[in-house]
Amino acid sequence: MDMPATKPKSKLKLNELTATEIVAAINGGQTTCEAVVRACLERIEAREPAVQAWQYLDPKQAIAQAVALDKSGRRGPLAGVPFGIKDIIDTSDMPTEYGSPIYKGHQPRNEAACVALGRKAGGVLMGKTVTTEFANRFPGKTRNPFDPKRTPGGSSSGSAAAVGDCMVALAIGTQTTGSTIRPASFCGAFGYRPTYGDLRCSGVREAAGSLDTLGLIARSVEDIALYRDVLVGEQPVPVPEHAGALRVGFCRTHLWPEVETHTQALLQDAAQKLAKTGAKVSDVNLSAEFEQLVDTHLAISSFEFSRNFTYEIEHHWDKLSDALRKGRLQSGLSCTFERYRDARAFAAKCRHAFAALMNDYDVLLTAAATGEAPLGLESTGNAKPCLIWTTLHVPALTMPVFKGPHGLPVGAQIIGKHDGDRALFAAARRIYSALT
Amino acid sequence: MDMPATKPKSKLKLNELTATEIVAAINGGQTTCEAVVRACLERIEAREPAVQAWQYLDPKQAIAQAVALDKSGRRGPLAGVPFGIKDIIDTSDMPTEYGSPIYKGHQPRNEAACVALGRKAGGVLMGKTVTTEFANRFPGKTRNPFDPKRTPGGSSSGSAAAVGDCMVALAIGTQTTGSTIRPASFCGAFGYRPTYGDLRCSGVREAAGSLDTLGLIARSVEDIALYRDVLVGEQPVPVPEHAGALRVGFCRTHLWPEVETHTQALLQDAAQKLAKTGAKVSDVNLSAEFEQLVDTHLAISSFEFSRNFTYEIEHHWDKLSDALRKGRLQSGLSCTFERYRDARAFAAKCRHAFAALMNDYDVLLTAAATGEAPLGLESTGNAKPCLIWTTLHVPALTMPVFKGPHGLPVGAQIIGKHDGDRALFAAARRIYSALT
Repeated sequence: MDMPATKPKSKLKLNELTATEIVAAINGGQTTCEAVVRACLERIEAREPAVQAWQYLDPKQAIAQAVALDKSGRRGPLAGVPFGIKDIIDTSDMPTEYGSPIYKGHQPRNEAACVALGRKAGGVLMGKTVTTEFANRFPGKTRNPFDPKRTPGGSSSGSAAAVGDCMVALAIGTQTTGSTIRPASFCGAFGYRPTYGDLRCSGVREAAGSLDTLGLIARSVEDIALYRDVLVGEQPVPVPEHAGALRVGFCRTHLWPEVETHTQALLQDAAQKLAKTGAKVSDVNLSAEFEQLVDTHLAISSFEFSRNFTYEIEHHWDKLSDALRKGRLQSGLSCTFERYRDARAFAAKCRHAFAALMNDYDVLLTAAATGEAPLGLESTGNAKPCLIWTTLHVPALTMPVFKGPHGLPVGAQIIGKHDGDRALFAAARRIYSALT
Repeated sequence: MDMPATKPKSKLKLNELTATEIVAAINGGQTTCEAVVRACLERIEAREPAVQAWQYLDPKQAIAQAVALDKSGRRGPLAGVPFGIKDIIDTSDMPTEYGSPIYKGHQPRNEAACVALGRKAGGVLMGKTVTTEFANRFPGKTRNPFDPKRTPGGSSSGSAAAVGDCMVALAIGTQTTGSTIRPASFCGAFGYRPTYGDLRCSGVREAAGSLDTLGLIARSVEDIALYRDVLVGEQPVPVPEHAGALRVGFCRTHLWPEVETHTQALLQDAAQKLAKTGAKVSDVNLSAEFEQLVDTHLAISSFEFSRNFTYEIEHHWDKLSDALRKGRLQSGLSCTFERYRDARAFAAKCRHAFAALMNDYDVLLTAAATGEAPLGLESTGNAKPCLIWTTLHVPALTMPVFKGPHGLPVGAQIIGKHDGDRALFAAARRIYSALT
């Protein structure tokens, strides 16, 4: 077990700094891009045999980028910050294999918008992090950095493990169900899914486009906000202060029985703690129709996925996992267009109902996962706690504030309003300081 | 001038048949996939020097696909139908250059969903059709098949010209503003933009994802409906009959002064003709707020486009056209995220208002373009008549029912309800037969 984030600040190594701290240290002349990258590479060298977060990483290539940045003197808002990119996302100078043997050694010609924006801001692309097969369920090689016998979660397995293990300060994943929030929770990191549509997915292999978003993984709320500003193409500004008492809706959802007792207790304690520190906390019960979002999500995601992968189905069926063929593809190919269209319309209706409900709250507090990372590497865990929020297109953020019964990290997820991402960050800062 | 579609049916050559007719002839044993493909290739050989619709076409490769289909005896719903694919869309066995010298000779590893679905249905991919630069404004080499001194429209220039000129029965384009409807109108073809989100864009180079759709180009309403069924992954069913009197809203929009007088008169005559044949026709005035959709569309499309092309901006600025740099990119890079988000919210508001308005109509009748294809090849024409409908995410279809003052084709565009694509086809059939 290894919990670097609990060390006193004064003893932090360069690879343990947050992105915000790295940028300050480089701009202040206390360190260099190269020194930061080398510290991360040392960490990776030491830990990668156990964690296996990287699908592709060439230390020389990473150092060359850092050296060039130091030489140029060019300083963007991510100056010298090493970041990882989920291998479902195209990179112009590193292979991109989408977690599938079909694309072994594939080298894209162009570069995804999110990669190019990160580099434009001065970030150093360290390498490609492990994804499950096509960002679906079939796991890659990554292990949980806190216990190699446990899953890191998925599908953004390597991104969450690399950040949680202090190999890089930032990483990009994606989320179509719970593929950023769940692994971030399992790996002790902050994970953020933006309002649907905010961050460009050009160059990201589509799973189900009407649900897909990027997901950002970091080790502080400030870093999440910084990275988001870079990726929307804005000059970063500090996270605002939340004004007045925070209105928190504690929302168990109808999936509460799937959440482990220990995690239920942690969340209930957290709700009480927030109330004691001045937040207005009340229970929120979603109306019964929201329960249908589980089936709605399945119809939308499977229908779209199964059409998107027609080429692979037709030409590489034997190279697809059984998990994919008998899971997502089978359910998608048997879903009619009419059912899909109805599901899409139902989701739109729920989004309106949810917006009305959120007039009374700043954020909802809910489970990020059913508990700590389960034992075993054959499954990436239960994604359901994220599914309602993903389908609602609202922003979500998980923070590593709990420990499970085995001492492993468990996240608390907060849900914001559509288009209210910066307000969500403001609330997150307040909640994080109240709970830790 | 060459107007093959006006020939008597009995004298039609194989390349002049619609997709529906090709499928029937092949299934009925009257012809073979190879014979159809060879007829299309002959047409292309004769006409390509003047029209220049194709970015990539290898006759041997096309014939090989047809021969293999004939040998296999496999008969899908597009059995033996030759189709073209806009060169903004990835193909696994043909280069994809996105209309840009940056991607000269680029060979994708995978294949867009829409290509694979067309082939799965038995269609023959003839080749890649010319696109403007990144599906934006800077024109490719294609000329209008009815007058080589005139633009074919854009950005789906080659797709519209190839279908209008009977080189292929079907082609796929894309539409972010008016990139399918306008070229289809200019080239005498049927053009269809689906309800946003219906047809998968995986493997299509994104321009502005929250507006992008595929666009289908064909020579009959039945073919459009057939192709759409194939692309949503359904077993095709015939276009339904519209029940009762058709409620047609004649909608000039505030852009009416930009429509040429001759075209205005054609549309007004058409509205009267429809009324005389039993439709309930009335004028529809969109409320004043819809005028803002022009700026709204500009903000959304430019913001997204300018972020999506960060890699090209950073690494290949010198290979981008001046038109792109000083147009879309400049307006996009100067658009803040806040402005973008507000524009997106405003568009969503208008979509709701439009849905309410459409309770009183089956379709709206409106201009597809400002007139016939303008002289010159340096511009692809005025895209504004499509812009409102594109931003509203509703389905649209243009039909070649008019002739302009120079005898060139002009389309009539009809607009359907969100999710009402098949009802739009039913209305289109009735309107087409009333107007021709």
